[in-house]
Amino acid sequence: MNNYITENKDRFLNELLDMLRIPSVSADPKFKQDVIRTAEFVADRLREAGADNVELCETAGYPIVYGEKIIDPSLPTVLVYGHYDVQPADPYELWNSPPFEPVIKDGKIYARGACDDKGQMYMHVKAFEVMMRNNALPCNVKFMIEGEEEVGSANLATFVKNNKEKLAADVILISDTGMLANDTPSITTGLRGMSYMEVEVTGPNRDLHSGLYGGAVANPINILCQMIASLHDENNHITIPGFYDNVTELSQEERAEMARAPFSLDKYKKALDLSDIHGEEGYTTMERTSIRPTLDVNGIWGGYIGEGAKTVIPSKAFAKISMRLVPNQTSAEITEKFTKHFESIAPASVKVVVKPHHGGEPVVTPTDSVAYQAASKAYEETFGVKPIPVRSGGSIPIVAMFKSELGLDSVLMGFGLDSDAIHSPNENFGVFNYMKGIETIPLFYKYYAEMSR
Amino acid sequence: MNNYITENKDRFLNELLDMLRIPSVSADPKFKQDVIRTAEFVADRLREAGADNVELCETAGYPIVYGEKIIDPSLPTVLVYGHYDVQPADPYELWNSPPFEPVIKDGKIYARGACDDKGQMYMHVKAFEVMMRNNALPCNVKFMIEGEEEVGSANLATFVKNNKEKLAADVILISDTGMLANDTPSITTGLRGMSYMEVEVTGPNRDLHSGLYGGAVANPINILCQMIASLHDENNHITIPGFYDNVTELSQEERAEMARAPFSLDKYKKALDLSDIHGEEGYTTMERTSIRPTLDVNGIWGGYIGEGAKTVIPSKAFAKISMRLVPNQTSAEITEKFTKHFESIAPASVKVVVKPHHGGEPVVTPTDSVAYQAASKAYEETFGVKPIPVRSGGSIPIVAMFKSELGLDSVLMGFGLDSDAIHSPNENFGVFNYMKGIETIPLFYKYYAEMSR
Repeated sequence: MNNYITENKDRFLNELLDMLRIPSVSADPKFKQDVIRTAEFVADRLREAGADNVELCETAGYPIVYGEKIIDPSLPTVLVYGHYDVQPADPYELWNSPPFEPVIKDGKIYARGACDDKGQMYMHVKAFEVMMRNNALPCNVKFMIEGEEEVGSANLATFVKNNKEKLAADVILISDTGMLANDTPSITTGLRGMSYMEVEVTGPNRDLHSGLYGGAVANPINILCQMIASLHDENNHITIPGFYDNVTELSQEERAEMARAPFSLDKYKKALDLSDIHGEEGYTTMERTSIRPTLDVNGIWGGYIGEGAKTVIPSKAFAKISMRLVPNQTSAEITEKFTKHFESIAPASVKVVVKPHHGGEPVVTPTDSVAYQAASKAYEETFGVKPIPVRSGGSIPIVAMFKSELGLDSVLMGFGLDSDAIHSPNENFGVFNYMKGIETIPLFYKYYAEMSR
Repeated sequence: MNNYITENKDRFLNELLDMLRIPSVSADPKFKQDVIRTAEFVADRLREAGADNVELCETAGYPIVYGEKIIDPSLPTVLVYGHYDVQPADPYELWNSPPFEPVIKDGKIYARGACDDKGQMYMHVKAFEVMMRNNALPCNVKFMIEGEEEVGSANLATFVKNNKEKLAADVILISDTGMLANDTPSITTGLRGMSYMEVEVTGPNRDLHSGLYGGAVANPINILCQMIASLHDENNHITIPGFYDNVTELSQEERAEMARAPFSLDKYKKALDLSDIHGEEGYTTMERTSIRPTLDVNGIWGGYIGEGAKTVIPSKAFAKISMRLVPNQTSAEITEKFTKHFESIAPASVKVVVKPHHGGEPVVTPTDSVAYQAASKAYEETFGVKPIPVRSGGSIPIVAMFKSELGLDSVLMGFGLDSDAIHSPNENFGVFNYMKGIETIPLFYKYYAEMSR
């Protein structure tokens, strides 16, 4: 198989670049045709690789690409999940090369979606091709590649509920996470959940001249800032009543175990050009990004934001605020607590509207399962070292949904790095990582089939 | 003269509408040619009205339109100041009709600049025409109409310093303020000064994924909100050290006198659709907008502000913050105090840049002068009631500059109303007010010339 991979490396790369050229931004309706075109691209490549029953399954939103290869119903079945949509690419001006004109530079593929998740998803399509061409597919496989992950997978749960038989499998395989370093592979065993809110604060019913009205009416920007500031106390604890009620606290032993993962605060600060870190008192940086819930403003806007100076008190100010959740918190619970609290702290001089965007549930995946052990063995073979299990700060809300709807655990075989700048300008994915993924995935199938016997 | 005004009313209106069609937004470089075209428009109309030596005086920015009519050097000279530039018109979508396609509806002219200051400035051009055509100009007049008032009059002071002889006069006449109501005329006798700052807060050196980094690095939006929130205490006093040091406190008698001006808090709240007002403890709404300094955020932005949800921690967040100043505060003093304080409250986890935009000095104009008395008499004749002297919350920084550079007091004969929505969508100016201005201004000249004898 490795010969085949080496011989086809250039084609594997070029196919990915072709897909990266299609701006499949699910959040922005103006890219609608591109998102659909990307679904068709994935379906075509699955067909070419040898998948059967490939189709674009319609949903209320973007289609889900389905395909399968059932070699023997008595063998185990791997259900591969990935997504073909990408995050918005703005601010465009911060990209060194246009986000949808991929380039390979210093061994890295630069493009929006290079890693998240087009690059990682496409490793699975190519690994499948590799196994098919080498008569080495050791079990059944199904693909379910969606186009709405970056906007909350709003229609995936309905699709899963309505297609439980079609999606019947033994394990779910996902590459949409990262690993610690190219010489320190790791497998994600926990994910944070999320509540994502949008808030609107209205002061006067129209924009006002700040000279004539300044000081006498509530400025919705000042008020919004005060409300946001009050969501953390001086120790950076979140002040929403009951926010931590259901948080699972880790034992000292578990925390000590976590602290063994290699981490350099100096390197971390240097990489981000930070003089100091900032976070919840009493927890380390690694803990703050994995086992602790957080609250961040993801966007804020109001008033005059053009060049120069305009002396206006705007009628409205807005913010997008998301919270990352940890095991035992639920998205519905936190969305409700946030909404109630945010409305309650608004002074009478303004009106507040709180609107939830998508949410997702936190999850912890077992490390004693056959699937985890097979993945671990596959990494060990290709990287030469045993991978470390780590809990990630990110959210893949559908992992919890797969568990509840299909009763299946997921194995999170990520090959990305922190430096891949996913969701940021200059997102990239190492050619090393892409090829390593294509090499490692067939070994997972091999060991998973063997160990399941 | 009033016959001439009645006969030419339609033309006076149409000429103003023609000028309002030119989008002379000085803050935005893309309107550069339009700003210059507006200067030429004003110069042409001054020439047609009979002004001599009309010219566009070049500056480092937009030109200043000058023109004069010296009928007898031994008579007093009125120097008219106004501005032909306008505020940016965004948000465009909130206008009921396009901002640069003026319409007259329900007796009001709707357009950006209808009142501030094209409408009010052009009353002077037409009043001059009325006096010239009726051989009724009783003293000398000079016009100085600038194009950078909405961006801080950056080049006016230099022009004034270099042209003291050319601008020699006895009083400055300005219509760039409002009055209480059409049946309650008033003359502005005080203006607030201003410091206008732009701040930039930088957290990490690039946008980050809020799942992977959330909780562990300083989010510049959250930090900016905290910094802004901390600029007011729970009583809405401004917390910048020394901010109030030089504020002139009014005596109880002066405050009682102010409180006599007609004002209905219910009407005020209703007009702005406010459930409650909001401002500095211990002061009335009228005081908050006139004799007290204020701090308002005029614009804020950072992170993802498009449709949908993006889980980003941005590298930077920005705000435009302006402070209105009252007598004895100076713009330089407050700009320095703000900058020092804002830098000092930034946590080590972020970097802060504070950049001043334009500033201006507060001013109080005397009510016992010949010029004020002449203006008062003119209003009384056309409105039928004596105008009330009021202190305004707005800023016309050049009034203080005229005093210091030319040694001249200004008379602020405003004809606008609070409901004119200057600096806001749907700015408008009453046809009644425009025509009343054209009627009242010649009477000011008449009484000023008479009373100066």
